[in-house]
Parts: sequence; structure tokens; C-alpha cells
Amino acid sequence: MVQEKTTDRDNALFEAGIKLGALYHQFTGSPVNLDTASSLEQAIQESISVQPYVEEISVKIDRNLLKSKLNNEFGYSELQGPMLKVNITVGYGSSKVRVGMEYDPKLNYPLMKILEIEEINV
Amino acid sequence: MVQEKTTDRDNALFEAGIKLGALYHQFTGSPVNLDTASSLEQAIQESISVQPYVEEISVKIDRNLLKSKLNNEFGYSELQGPMLKVNITVGYGSSKVRVGMEYDPKLNYPLMKILEIEEINV
Amino acid sequence: MVQEKTTDRDNALFEAGIKLGALYHQFTGSPVNLDTASSLEQAIQESISVQPYVEEISVKIDRNLLKSKLNNEFGYSELQGPMLKVNITVGYGSSKVRVGMEYDPKLNYPLMKILEIEEINV
Amino acid sequence: MVQEKTTDRDNALFEAGIKLGALYHQFTGSPVNLDTASSLEQAIQESISVQPYVEEISVKIDRNLLKSKLNNEFGYSELQGPMLKVNITVGYGSSKVRVGMEYDPKLNYPLMKILEIEEINV
Repeated sequence: MVQEKTTDRDNALFEAGIKLGALYHQFTGSPVNLDTASSLEQAIQESISVQPYVEEISVKIDRNLLKSKLNNEFGYSELQGPMLKVNITVGYGSSKVRVGMEYDPKLNYPLMKILEIEEINV
Repeated sequence: MVQEKTTDRDNALFEAGIKLGALYHQFTGSPVNLDTASSLEQAIQESISVQPYVEEISVKIDRNLLKSKLNNEFGYSELQGPMLKVNITVGYGSSKVRVGMEYDPKLNYPLMKILEIEEINV
Repeated sequence: MVQEKTTDRDNALFEAGIKLGALYHQFTGSPVNLDTASSLEQAIQESISVQPYVEEISVKIDRNLLKSKLNNEFGYSELQGPMLKVNITVGYGSSKVRVGMEYDPKLNYPLMKILEIEEINV
Repeated sequence: MVQEKTTDRDNALFEAGIKLGALYHQFTGSPVNLDTASSLEQAIQESISVQPYVEEISVKIDRNLLKSKLNNEFGYSELQGPMLKVNITVGYGSSKVRVGMEYDPKLNYPLMKILEIEEINV
């Protein structure tokens, strides 16, 4: 085993993971319907954007999936992981990473993944 | 001990309590700063408004208290209970109740309380 | 319309609602599998029991429903509202109320309801 | 700018960040006092341990800080970020990372950081 020094790239990926985990567990469970989905998207975006190292964030709630969950007595649902499509760009020193979350039907799981890693040559 | 039948008034108060408990534990912890407080207020209002029996809701985040919590390295805070001032009106059958939540400095506690109970004579 | 004075019974029901709303929105979303369900039940019970006016609380996670949700790639689920069966007894002055939450398949909804109201004759 | 391929190390750090963000935003806000802190620690540990790639986890709630927050009318507090001391080991392919969270008094912030990165030579 070799112990390694921490790089900007390591920190960028670690920070990007923190943001996705935070977003998911802070906001899933929020009551939502088709009329209120856009204010919730907006608030989630702005909320997570104030955390350290976030450069860009986009949050979309899948309206079709939401619609399919409104079939209870009271006509609303909760924000569920599979409804979320999220993209976040994190910058840390010389490293910039883009990560995302999106429901993966094959895994039956709202999968978070690394989409892009860029090293800025200085 | 006497067992009692459940009235509209009972249900209105029970439902009003549910909304305040839900709001508090869903949204406290959300990252927030002075620029994003209003989108968070808006989203909380709209989110809780879709729950059953909610007739009116107003959510305010105390900007002065928020400002006083921005003194960390990264210039943002989390939504904390004492920052919230909430008013909710719930209607259930012949009963309408108004409840609220507001920080009580004497108790050092974000106190939820019943503000008004009205019975509609039919 | 007639404005009413707030009674112990009103407050007991309001407080009972707060506890159910809090429990639901604090703990749903927690990662859970069959091995960890009992520590989560225990923690939820103890956590909500420290809130004001709670006299008794029982929290059960439906193992069959949980098992049916473990079919993703990673073999765990999140605590979802329909998995929860909760009973809470709240005492406030001369009033004691028992409330509960349980999935109602007809409504397709984790329904919270008032189960019992007792007035202690003094 | 140079686009990079994703390595096991990248994924290990990303996954480790997800766990810390999830833990923080799922469980802060939970009502807690000195009697219930240990069941909450236990449940948090077990809950996060079921998530993918977690090899070890330890969660401690700072009893002194908790005690200092019990000075409200009702003798309990909520789990707050600065009370948490967490260590998580994540393994992903040939990479193993240890990350942690602990209140940093100089930053006045519950800082999450990378503690150790190991590459297993195969």
C-alpha cells in the first residue's frame, strides 16, 4: 500500500460528492406538485450554490415521473430521488469537475456519477 | 377518564401541527445566505401549501439573524429554527385554525403555537 | 364565526401533530436495510421522545415492504413513509391524546390520524 | 485544459464525499439529549454503512457541546453539525480513502476533509 498526497483533483471530487449527498438528503421528502416543482428546483439550485467551490448547478425535477406519483387521495407527492436530474460543476484550485445525478432504470437507482474532470494547465 | 369523539376542531389542530413539524424538519439545515433566502422562503411556502387542508401560509427568514450567522470561513449558513417565522391557516370542516412558529428569546426556543381557532356556525 | 379559547385538548392535538410531522420529515430518506432497521426504529423512538409532551412512542418499520424495496443494484433502500407504523401518546394538562401514522392502501398514502382523546376529570 | 479519465481514486473520493454530505443533511436536526445520543450515533453509523463502498464508519456526538445546548425551556437540543465527529473509510477498486468531519473552531465550521488516500498495488 502506498500513501498518497492529496491533490486539487482529489479535493474537487470529494467536494462534488458532498454537494450531491447534501442536496439529496436535504431536499428529498419535500412536498411537491406540478405547480410548485419550479420554485423547488430554483430553491435547491440556489441553496446548494452557496456551498464552497460550487461553480455551476442545474436541478431539474422530472415532471412525467412526478405526475405519475400524484395518484394519492390528496394530489401531491414528495420529491423522490428518481425525479431528480442534477448537474454540478465544482472548481478546486487547478481542477474542475462536473458531476451529476440521474435515475438509472437498469440499476433502479438514482445514480450519482463523475461526468468530467479537467486539469487546468498553469 | 372520559373518551371523547374527534371533532373538526381536533383535526384542524392536529393537521396544523403536522404542517409545522414537517416544515421545520424538512427545511432546516438548508444552506442559505442573504441572496438565496427569498427563493428558499418561496419554495418552503409553496411546498407546504400542497399538503392537505392548508389554506394560507407565510414563511419569513429573519435576515438579521441570518446575517449574524454568516461569520464562518465560507460566508453562508444553514437555515436554523430560530430564523423562521411561519404562519399557517388550516381549515378542516367547520373549523379554521391559525398556528405559528417564532423564536421565543425567553425560552431560547423556536416556539410553535396556536394563534387562533374559529368555528364556523352553520 | 366565533373565536374560541385554546384548551388543553387543542394543545395536545397540536403537539401530537407536530411530533408526527417532525418524525416523518426528519427520518424518511435514511438509508436502511433489514440488518439496520431495528437501530433506526430505536433511534427514531428515542429522538422524538425527547420532544415536549411526548409520553409514549412506538415506531415500527414494515420489514416486508422494506424487503420489497431492496431490489436495486446496491441492496439497500431508504426509509419511506409507507414503511412506517407509528403510535404516539401526548399529554398536555388535563388532556391525553393518542395519534398514529400508518400506510393506507386505499388512499395510497401514509395517513396520520387521531386515535384516541381522553380528558382527565379533575 | 486537459480532459482526464476517471480513476478508482477519483471515484473513491467522490463516493466518500457523498456519504458525508448525506449523513450531515439526513441527520442534523434530529432531536437529541444526553440519554438518547448513543442510540442516534448507532443508527447514523448503521444507516450510512449500508450505502455503497462504505468499509468503516464511526460517528461520535460531542457530549460537552450537546450539554451546552440543553439550556432551553425543554431540556433537549437538535443534532447540529458542530457536534458531529465522523470518520468514514471508502473502498473503490484499488483505492481506499479515509475522510472525516469535525468542527474547526478557527473556521467556525464543521469541516469535512480527506484524511488518507491509499492505492493498493496489484
